[in-house]
Amino acid sequence: MESFVTKASASAQPLKNADELIDSVETFIFDCDGVIWKGDKLIDGVPETLDMLRSKGKRLVFVTNNSTKSRKQYGKKFETLGLTVTEEEIFASSFAAAAYLKSIDFPKDKKVYVVGEDGILKELELAGFQYLGGPEDGGKKIELKPGFLMEHDKDVGAVVVGFDRYFNYYKVQYGTLCIRENPGCLFIATNRDAVTHLTDAQEWAGGGSMVGAFVGSTQREPLVVGKPSTFMMDYLANK
Amino acid sequence: MESFVTKASASAQPLKNADELIDSVETFIFDCDGVIWKGDKLIDGVPETLDMLRSKGKRLVFVTNNSTKSRKQYGKKFETLGLTVTEEEIFASSFAAAAYLKSIDFPKDKKVYVVGEDGILKELELAGFQYLGGPEDGGKKIELKPGFLMEHDKDVGAVVVGFDRYFNYYKVQYGTLCIRENPGCLFIATNRDAVTHLTDAQEWAGGGSMVGAFVGSTQREPLVVGKPSTFMMDYLANK
Repeated sequence: MESFVTKASASAQPLKNADELIDSVETFIFDCDGVIWKGDKLIDGVPETLDMLRSKGKRLVFVTNNSTKSRKQYGKKFETLGLTVTEEEIFASSFAAAAYLKSIDFPKDKKVYVVGEDGILKELELAGFQYLGGPEDGGKKIELKPGFLMEHDKDVGAVVVGFDRYFNYYKVQYGTLCIRENPGCLFIATNRDAVTHLTDAQEWAGGGSMVGAFVGSTQREPLVVGKPSTFMMDYLANK
Repeated sequence: MESFVTKASASAQPLKNADELIDSVETFIFDCDGVIWKGDKLIDGVPETLDMLRSKGKRLVFVTNNSTKSRKQYGKKFETLGLTVTEEEIFASSFAAAAYLKSIDFPKDKKVYVVGEDGILKELELAGFQYLGGPEDGGKKIELKPGFLMEHDKDVGAVVVGFDRYFNYYKVQYGTLCIRENPGCLFIATNRDAVTHLTDAQEWAGGGSMVGAFVGSTQREPLVVGKPSTFMMDYLANK
């Protein structure tokens, strides 16, 4: 399989024209935010470009670091914008987390603690993993009375951190306890983006802020599965 | 003025005994957590040691990175534990933030956005600075509807980040907007501790997690005013 990325880096000579570029590449990987859409608006020229590439038999992959939705939920977003894209053509960082755990044969009797939104939960469920946390922990508070101790599940073997508008101290402490105290517990980040585009009106603090909180409390660096990660490129190249 | 720290680093020879050490030092700087108390319990031997040092005319300073209380509130904690300590002998990171702003003549017509608890607010008020945020923003939520834009105060000239059990995404976004968009806005951390001891039953994710979130979203490094910072040592040496 040839991809845009491997071809572009393999070729030292600039390609003469767009046709030559298109002919030389088998797979086109598209970012979504700012490339396909901006917030909830389709970007001009996108449908024509995708149609043209499909008519030439190209493989298309749509990549997004936004982990709030699953591939299925992204499929609906494409549909709403008038684009027909299959789930297999979507690589969202929500899916990346589940795909990574699958790639390392993460034990099915272990659990995943999720700091993030619905997309991650849906993809973990689809992949057959047990999880806890997510939006459910958004309303939880800690009463710091003398002697108070937060219990945590010793079976958590991975903490997955992505963008989370319901981020709170309960989640920081719970995930930190798992990473610090459960032997071998993984610390996985869907992405470390400083900025995300939840609405098109302004830039929003991205998944990098949730991940940064755990870096601060655990003094550990996460394994990143979204863009830019070797896991993502390896996964797409081997698929 | 001589201090324990300058003396210890100046002397390459180990001091022969405790008496010689005590005689050679004018100021003793104590950490509080794990040195004076553990959670809400006084550590054995502390009252006798402090009485002995005071009887020799030593200057005592009690330093804590915990910014949830003001110096006055810490004074009450010492009192509860049966120790008589004046506000002037306490250097809490809540106070450090206000003292730092004073040291740089932070304009009184500018405002400080606070991610943290009551101690920081109380010290800013005492120093005559205008502030917003703090515990009040703990219940605020963001509705990410299409086109939604968070307004922020353009007069915020500094964001102070400390431990905050009411940490949430609203605060991350508000503080990030101030740091990113208000020209010259300062990013000040009371501390970057991974761990704090809010109860003695377990280790809690510390102020480093709140600070880490802002490092992730702003891609900027904070100025740290608590331990270990040159500001703190300079302030104590020059007092």
